[in-house]
Amino acid sequence: MNVSIIAIGDELLLGNVVDTNTPFMASLIDAAGWQLVHSCQVHDDPCDILFAVKEAMRRSDVVLTTGGLGPTKDDITKQVLCEFFGGKLVHDASVAANVERIFAERGLPMNALTASQAMVPSSCTVIPNASGTAPVMWFERDGKVLVSMPGVPREMRYTFTREVLPRLHSLIANTEHPTLHRFFLLEGISESAVDTKLSGEECPAELRDIHKAYLPQPGYLKIRLDHTDNDTLAKAAQQFEQLMGQYIFAREDVKPAEALIDTLRARSMTVSTAESCTGGNIAHLITSIAGSSAVFNGSVVSYSNDMKINVLGVPAEMIAENGAVSTPVAAAMADGAARLAHTHCSVATSGIAGPGGATPGKPVGTVCIAVKTPSGTHSDTYRFTGNRAEVIERASVKALILLLRALK
Amino acid sequence: MNVSIIAIGDELLLGNVVDTNTPFMASLIDAAGWQLVHSCQVHDDPCDILFAVKEAMRRSDVVLTTGGLGPTKDDITKQVLCEFFGGKLVHDASVAANVERIFAERGLPMNALTASQAMVPSSCTVIPNASGTAPVMWFERDGKVLVSMPGVPREMRYTFTREVLPRLHSLIANTEHPTLHRFFLLEGISESAVDTKLSGEECPAELRDIHKAYLPQPGYLKIRLDHTDNDTLAKAAQQFEQLMGQYIFAREDVKPAEALIDTLRARSMTVSTAESCTGGNIAHLITSIAGSSAVFNGSVVSYSNDMKINVLGVPAEMIAENGAVSTPVAAAMADGAARLAHTHCSVATSGIAGPGGATPGKPVGTVCIAVKTPSGTHSDTYRFTGNRAEVIERASVKALILLLRALK
Repeated sequence: MNVSIIAIGDELLLGNVVDTNTPFMASLIDAAGWQLVHSCQVHDDPCDILFAVKEAMRRSDVVLTTGGLGPTKDDITKQVLCEFFGGKLVHDASVAANVERIFAERGLPMNALTASQAMVPSSCTVIPNASGTAPVMWFERDGKVLVSMPGVPREMRYTFTREVLPRLHSLIANTEHPTLHRFFLLEGISESAVDTKLSGEECPAELRDIHKAYLPQPGYLKIRLDHTDNDTLAKAAQQFEQLMGQYIFAREDVKPAEALIDTLRARSMTVSTAESCTGGNIAHLITSIAGSSAVFNGSVVSYSNDMKINVLGVPAEMIAENGAVSTPVAAAMADGAARLAHTHCSVATSGIAGPGGATPGKPVGTVCIAVKTPSGTHSDTYRFTGNRAEVIERASVKALILLLRALK
Repeated sequence: MNVSIIAIGDELLLGNVVDTNTPFMASLIDAAGWQLVHSCQVHDDPCDILFAVKEAMRRSDVVLTTGGLGPTKDDITKQVLCEFFGGKLVHDASVAANVERIFAERGLPMNALTASQAMVPSSCTVIPNASGTAPVMWFERDGKVLVSMPGVPREMRYTFTREVLPRLHSLIANTEHPTLHRFFLLEGISESAVDTKLSGEECPAELRDIHKAYLPQPGYLKIRLDHTDNDTLAKAAQQFEQLMGQYIFAREDVKPAEALIDTLRARSMTVSTAESCTGGNIAHLITSIAGSSAVFNGSVVSYSNDMKINVLGVPAEMIAENGAVSTPVAAAMADGAARLAHTHCSVATSGIAGPGGATPGKPVGTVCIAVKTPSGTHSDTYRFTGNRAEVIERASVKALILLLRALK
């Protein structure tokens, strides 16, 4: 089954907002075994929307649109869909009741704008939207389907997963073989080096011929193997493991923090962080994962030398002698965090995220990372490329992977 | 000048990667006074790419493509562009030298794949790419331009800002009047309530008639006023200020953390954080801003009660009596952070980010936030909606805005 996505909204084409709705739906479409063949972003403009709808209905069986339904957008999308699918805008009692319920819950007064949300094309079936006021509309024509959803990510995610996906599943007796996937997370090897190995003579035929996706992430490389037959996929995955084992740090489509938490939990171990240049981002990556409180006790972000000395217990003379960005200071920070937070393990960072702060011999991107486990504390200096956000993210991910490897 | 963007890559349509390249270019195109009329994502498939290129060349003066150039992608994009613009693939010495330089710098051996990157269509002008191995290619036809850039965000950003944008500026004697913008950040009012006020009778005509964009962000609302005439824009902005003043917390297109840092810097004040449920994210938001070290000393992430008691100095009996998620504990955490980090101000959070952890009377999303300034510490309980990531982000932003307002 072929699917197209149309994201509607001036804000998407002005660069004020990143379209996260499309990748969210894309991964669920892929997981269902369907093919997303095209996605686009168009203005809140009747001609642009109509052209995109016509094109998408031509190239695919199902068209998903997001956005263009807000109370301040003049409901352009509803007018266009009415024009394309026929009929006229009519008042829908269920949508009106939903809008009233939500405004009553939030203690807000109804106004003419929000009341107009209850007008929907007569040619559509309205799907309940428990998460917001905008109607979700299902249209059918010539055996094809178009579903119009709100653009607010929280509402789109709620209605897509709870209402739209189940209806698409039951609509289509899906006789296609879904594509199965295996994921590997690698660190310390480039995309082209992996590809050279996987297309070379020493690579077994199953692995060489299987479809692969290379998905570079900040600080590591995600690789996906695809096949419809589970045995073929398992064999290729085993061969991949043999060829690439030394670079693999996880074997699931997880974030590095998730892989670390799983490992710590399996060992009944706890972790803390002491962060200078990463500024709390390692703690944030860990605590973004539900259940992290089972292994994570806490963190000290020591942006000032004062915090390093008086809270983490780094000797002042050590900083004076080596500088704050040094391997002994990072190691003392890691030890300090584990002592304060009473944890088995810890990671610490001290470096120069940029754009300022570089000193001779320590350019922007220089980060000392220390890892403490029950078998000792190890500290080393790394160099990361990119802007401030990239240096912070890469140094954070490196620290997580270093601890994960130290525990294996 | 009309612009279209084509982002090429299977990964974009499988949902493995969020396309951040398009919004990055979109905001710079808007800032230049040009119009981005369409953007789309297509597979690494010759037919899909060719169709998208034809369509984009028809509807716009400049077409920007990203991706489809990596060493493992078989250079499909180069073949398609060669077919569309004519000519054949030829070896380019400057690209080859660049690839060799980068591999030498990284200490990696050259391989056949990377060497093939030096093949480019004879119909293009090669633009230097100092940030990576993929060539940047500039094509012209019938007075229109197509530029093909790498898809790796770091390389795209570098080449687009340093090489492509200046060339577009000098190519086009831009006689159009660029659209000017004014930004306001609001908190405590809904999008539809703002729109009702701005379209009502009591709204002055200039403000009512000016083009506005509503850009909801996690935890606040960004509003943009647009006009080509600076005086008209200034007048509408002044009227907006009078009507909405109580909700406005910033008057620039900045992040809340940036607005807070600017205010603290102007007052020669410093800040620290004590975070439980936000897990270091407030510190991360602050330290993501270059120059934050001038006002930010550090943070304690106290995920365990032990850290709250022994590091932040929260009385154990206070936790036993009120629970960790309570206004007195949040206030004691804020005071503890300011004491430890020697700062004038601090914020603290203690709450339930979910999905687990709810207790009777304290559902998921309940967060106590304390704000300390030189005039005292104030602590209150808030309720945030959404999943774990959304609760963390909204509570973090709320804490930053609360401190900002307390300082005004």
